[in-house]
Amino acid sequence: MTVLGIDGGGSKTKFLLEDDNGLEIARLETGPSNWLSAGAAAARESILEGLSQLPEPPDVVCGGFAGAGRPESAAFYRDCLQQALPRARVLVETDAFIAYIGAIGIRPGVLLIAGTGSIAVGRREDGFMVRAGGWGPYFGDEGSGHWIGREAVRTALRAYDAGEFPEFVSAVERGLGLRSITDAPLAWRKGNADVRLVASLAESIFQQYPAEPANRILNEAAAHLRTLVETAVRKVGAPACPLSVAGSVAAHPIMQKLLGLSASPPQHPPERGAIIWARSTL
Amino acid sequence: MTVLGIDGGGSKTKFLLEDDNGLEIARLETGPSNWLSAGAAAARESILEGLSQLPEPPDVVCGGFAGAGRPESAAFYRDCLQQALPRARVLVETDAFIAYIGAIGIRPGVLLIAGTGSIAVGRREDGFMVRAGGWGPYFGDEGSGHWIGREAVRTALRAYDAGEFPEFVSAVERGLGLRSITDAPLAWRKGNADVRLVASLAESIFQQYPAEPANRILNEAAAHLRTLVETAVRKVGAPACPLSVAGSVAAHPIMQKLLGLSASPPQHPPERGAIIWARSTL
Repeated sequence: MTVLGIDGGGSKTKFLLEDDNGLEIARLETGPSNWLSAGAAAARESILEGLSQLPEPPDVVCGGFAGAGRPESAAFYRDCLQQALPRARVLVETDAFIAYIGAIGIRPGVLLIAGTGSIAVGRREDGFMVRAGGWGPYFGDEGSGHWIGREAVRTALRAYDAGEFPEFVSAVERGLGLRSITDAPLAWRKGNADVRLVASLAESIFQQYPAEPANRILNEAAAHLRTLVETAVRKVGAPACPLSVAGSVAAHPIMQKLLGLSASPPQHPPERGAIIWARSTL
Repeated sequence: MTVLGIDGGGSKTKFLLEDDNGLEIARLETGPSNWLSAGAAAARESILEGLSQLPEPPDVVCGGFAGAGRPESAAFYRDCLQQALPRARVLVETDAFIAYIGAIGIRPGVLLIAGTGSIAVGRREDGFMVRAGGWGPYFGDEGSGHWIGREAVRTALRAYDAGEFPEFVSAVERGLGLRSITDAPLAWRKGNADVRLVASLAESIFQQYPAEPANRILNEAAAHLRTLVETAVRKVGAPACPLSVAGSVAAHPIMQKLLGLSASPPQHPPERGAIIWARSTL
């Protein structure tokens, strides 16, 4: 029996096909499959392109997709997979869920994910999943790459007002491809600066650490991420449960130091988490 | 000689026509004329509609418009006015500038404006204008109505995660017209919740003061607004210069108390500021 795990994200979609013995048959990657951010057509294409490249159709497929916690999104992904693989058993979960299973397994614990966005997901002893954060770039995702980037732009505009931190302001201008930081609001309004570009500033903020104002921004990000973890741990109800961190921001050595949490790296990537989950339900 | 003052904003445009003696000939109001937020066609229509309703064409017109600090925006407004009033002398300034002149006059000082957005404008002894803030809803406008509203939604989502402040969460849900606060990110993404709707939450946050978390949100907003004032005062270079506050948030009695600044209400509204400025340049 072959099992396919899919990790569907906002920038790429990963496919892993394994045989009965858990040995890899194929591994490949296509474009974005978050149907809310990339659009339904592009998401469907990324998924179908990946499936068409497999050497054989799987017996079971488990896909983790952003937004699949909403019924209409889950239905979209389910239809997509079932139509392309009419004989397969299809499971659709959220991207955070399969990341959790990959990172920690079936047992209780908490996984903090912070890349472009941020969320903490936890699993209780009874199997019930809990979450904190993950509310998107406008109202949430505190401490994420996008949050760090937006805070960097805000800080640069305030520094411009006050005539402070000229090198910091220049770094943000360069990161956004702007001649002047004062063009940032218009660039955002016109769509020339989007969530991904703003999130890409985070790397430069890490590079400037421990200089100010990077130091303040990263410490505030760490405080937000710790709050996510604390909320999730409380909801799991097991204070000493295992903790794992993933994502370009949470897994960054500087952020690990600032977080000061005792965490292990994920045991497996999300696409393997999808396979582990599929097997556990057989 | 008749002078027309125009205060062009994102929700409405005000017109005030005065005669030689500073006596009111006409006063009227049309729709939005911020060409970046309302679009060029709607902005032009609001301006032309107002001009067409005047009992007589003015000899001089001074309009203050959002974004007129940018050359392409200033040109748009200038063309609009000059084409409709070919014989008039046309002055185009920013909305913040005419608000300043109305509030404080030609002398040095600082005006804090916080409604949907936030900005502090100041005038130096040499007539040079300075500003702090006013960078728009995504990267700036700290302490504004939109900032308070977005912070309320963030806080409600965090409270939902943690199972806290159920009444606060309900108030935010009602304010956004949502059944669940968890729908807020999607409502924003779909455009069902926009900057104005989010800013409209501020009134409910004032009503809940001094209960938490309204108390914390408003105190943080006050700290941001004080920073704007301090930056502008420093750039004006006259620590004891007069200070005025305007806008639904900055002028709110609770915010006045939290700000703890010694400020006077504006002497005149912005459209009258435009007239005062036009006269001063004759």
